[in-house]
Order: sequence, then C-alpha cells, then structure tokens
Amino acid sequence: MKLYNWKGAPNPQRVIIFIKEKCLDVEIINVGHPTGASLSPDYLANNPHRLVPILELEDGTKIGEAMAICRYLETIYPAKTQLMGINPLDQAIVDMWERRADMEGLGAVGEVFRNSHPAFVNRGLPGQTENIPQISDLVVRGSKRLNLFFTKFDNQIGKNPYITGERFTVADITTFCATNFALKVCKLKIPQSCENFRRWHKSISSRPSIKN
Amino acid sequence: MKLYNWKGAPNPQRVIIFIKEKCLDVEIINVGHPTGASLSPDYLANNPHRLVPILELEDGTKIGEAMAICRYLETIYPAKTQLMGINPLDQAIVDMWERRADMEGLGAVGEVFRNSHPAFVNRGLPGQTENIPQISDLVVRGSKRLNLFFTKFDNQIGKNPYITGERFTVADITTFCATNFALKVCKLKIPQSCENFRRWHKSISSRPSIKN
Repeated sequence: MKLYNWKGAPNPQRVIIFIKEKCLDVEIINVGHPTGASLSPDYLANNPHRLVPILELEDGTKIGEAMAICRYLETIYPAKTQLMGINPLDQAIVDMWERRADMEGLGAVGEVFRNSHPAFVNRGLPGQTENIPQISDLVVRGSKRLNLFFTKFDNQIGKNPYITGERFTVADITTFCATNFALKVCKLKIPQSCENFRRWHKSISSRPSIKN
Repeated sequence: MKLYNWKGAPNPQRVIIFIKEKCLDVEIINVGHPTGASLSPDYLANNPHRLVPILELEDGTKIGEAMAICRYLETIYPAKTQLMGINPLDQAIVDMWERRADMEGLGAVGEVFRNSHPAFVNRGLPGQTENIPQISDLVVRGSKRLNLFFTKFDNQIGKNPYITGERFTVADITTFCATNFALKVCKLKIPQSCENFRRWHKSISSRPSIKN
C-alpha cells in the first residue's frame, strides 16, 4: 500500500500518525510540487479530486479522505492497537469528537490559512481548478472560531489524559493536527486560559508517532 | 432511544432517513423553537453543543454528529439493511463519498443559507453563542461551490443508480439532504447539464423513506 502525502499538510498528517501508532507498513510518497505551493503536476493529472491523502491499494484502488483511510486500516488490521474505539458506544463517542475536531478545529484553521497565505490567492478552497478568491473576513472568523474550538476541547479534556478519556484515539490525532497547523503554520496560539488543552498538547507532542 | 430533531434542518434529516431505511424504532423529538428560528430554550439549556441531531440512549448517554449516530445504529443492528458498505473496501468507498457529500455539498449549501437568511444575522456559524457576523462573499462562494459539487457527483453517478454503484447507502442520504436543502430552502437549482445527477435525484426523491 502507498499513501500519497503533501509534507506539512494537516490531512495526510492525520493518516501518517495513525499508521505510525499502529506500526503499519505503508509506503509514504510525497507528491508536493518540488518548488511551488501545490501538488505535483503528475499527481494532479492522475487524481481528479486534487487532494491528499490518498491510499493506493496493491490492485490500484484509491481511497481518499483521511478518516475513510483510517477506518479502512482499522478494519483490515484488527489485531493492531485500536484507535477508533473498542466497542460500539466508545466508537460513537470517538467518532463524534473526531468529527468535531475536524469541523471546528481543522475547519477553522483551514479558513485562516487558505484565505490569508499569499501562495493561495484565488485558491480559497482546496481541490478546485476554478478561481476561488480569498475572503479576508474568513481570516478573522477562523481565528475566533479556533478559539471557540480550543475552549470547547479544553472543557472536554478536563483532567483526562486524552480527548475521550483514558485511551489515545483518532480524536486526539485530528485535534493535534489542527492545533499543530494553527501553531506552526498560522502562528496562532492556544489561549493561556485553556490549561487542560495546553497540558494535553504538551503530552501528545512527545509521543514517538508525532515527535519523530 | 430518542432522536432530537429540528424539522427542516438537513443534519437530523440524514439520521431520520437512515432510521426509516433500516426500519428502526427510534422516537423522534422535535426541539425547534415553537415560534422562532432556533432550537428551543429547554434543549439549549441541556445540550452545550447546541446542535441537532443528538441520539439519547436509554441510560441517558448522548451521541452527537449525524454520521457517528448512523454508524452506531449500523453497528448495533447488524441484521438490518447495511447502509454503510458491506465489506472493508466498500465501507471505505461509501465513507469517502459520504464525506465528500458532507464537505462539498452540505458545506456549500450551509455557507449560502447561514450567510444570507435574515433570521441568521450574527449567527453565521451553527452551535455558537457568540455573535458570528454573516459574510456576504460566502453566499457567492457557496453557490459556486455547490455547482462544483453537482458536477463532481454527476460524473461519479454516471450510469449507476446510486452514488457508489449498485447499492443505496449513506452517501446517497447525505447527497440527497444537501440537494434538498439547496432546492427547497435556498431556492438553488441542479444545473441542466448534470443529467445523471437529475435522474438520480428524481429516483431518490421517490423512496418511501424520503417521500413520506
């Protein structure tokens, strides 16, 4: 199996951390443009959805969308560490929080990034060939929304080690990738008042799947 | 089990169609404000996430997020019609297309609706208590994005009866709910050129789970 990656992009990072946590043998292929801020022309020519990540199976079948890929790997390797819940209710709770991290965290930071970065003028939405103008109001809204996300997740974490309680899951992975992109690329900050979140972030950042 | 619904909202509609297709016995409780365009004060007081749908289990546990609820129901009722794929690869393909329908279809129509409707001034994002101003540029972008969604899904449907091929799945449900909201509430149209999509939409609209 091969995973197509664009180094630094948060969506393939979700799958890469997932693969490392499960110790799976998947070849990572970087398809970022060698010099510009886009995917490579070869990759775009062969992938009409123009997005990463994509998992390519041995027979050439391609699966897109980070969580569809993670769930596929979770299902076909049942003996590896379970990262998407261990019974139907636990799975639902993990699914719910992963989804919130995606919509409210990654969605917010994506708004900020795509609508402010000079390399993405007229590329306000990923995966499109048409001109999509940047909307400066979305930079303001995205920052505000990201702070609401930090506060909500700070409350959810409370005294627990992980987003959904005692086990590390994909909800932690998506929350980390959103936060990491906000901090490293968009130069935003976790509010000082979000002490639980800051403690969680420090602890997650030291995991081997993330640190290396 | 109880499902909290806001009549006319597309996200709970995804779960309601799913429940009907599976012939499950779930009580539907409408929690829209009796006179205004919001959720009822009682519901908001008891649900900090301020969103529908929520599935409440017999012991009071609450599951939010439409697809987390659907997957929970799919898992605990394995003998009912499977709507999320019938093997790991099929599940991944359904998951991928459902996700695209959610992000690219529901996401687009949500942009148009929330940023244009006079009842949602300063409520540009769902589930928040803070003022989130409407952004008129998002109405323009959302309409454009919705047409890109219709075109992408028109190509995907091709000559098939359903989004992922021969079986009706949650990918059809989310695509229908996005389209229905666009047509009925936002008064947008499926482009004439999207003949496959129009044929699919006509066929899906006549299903008992949707028609009644």
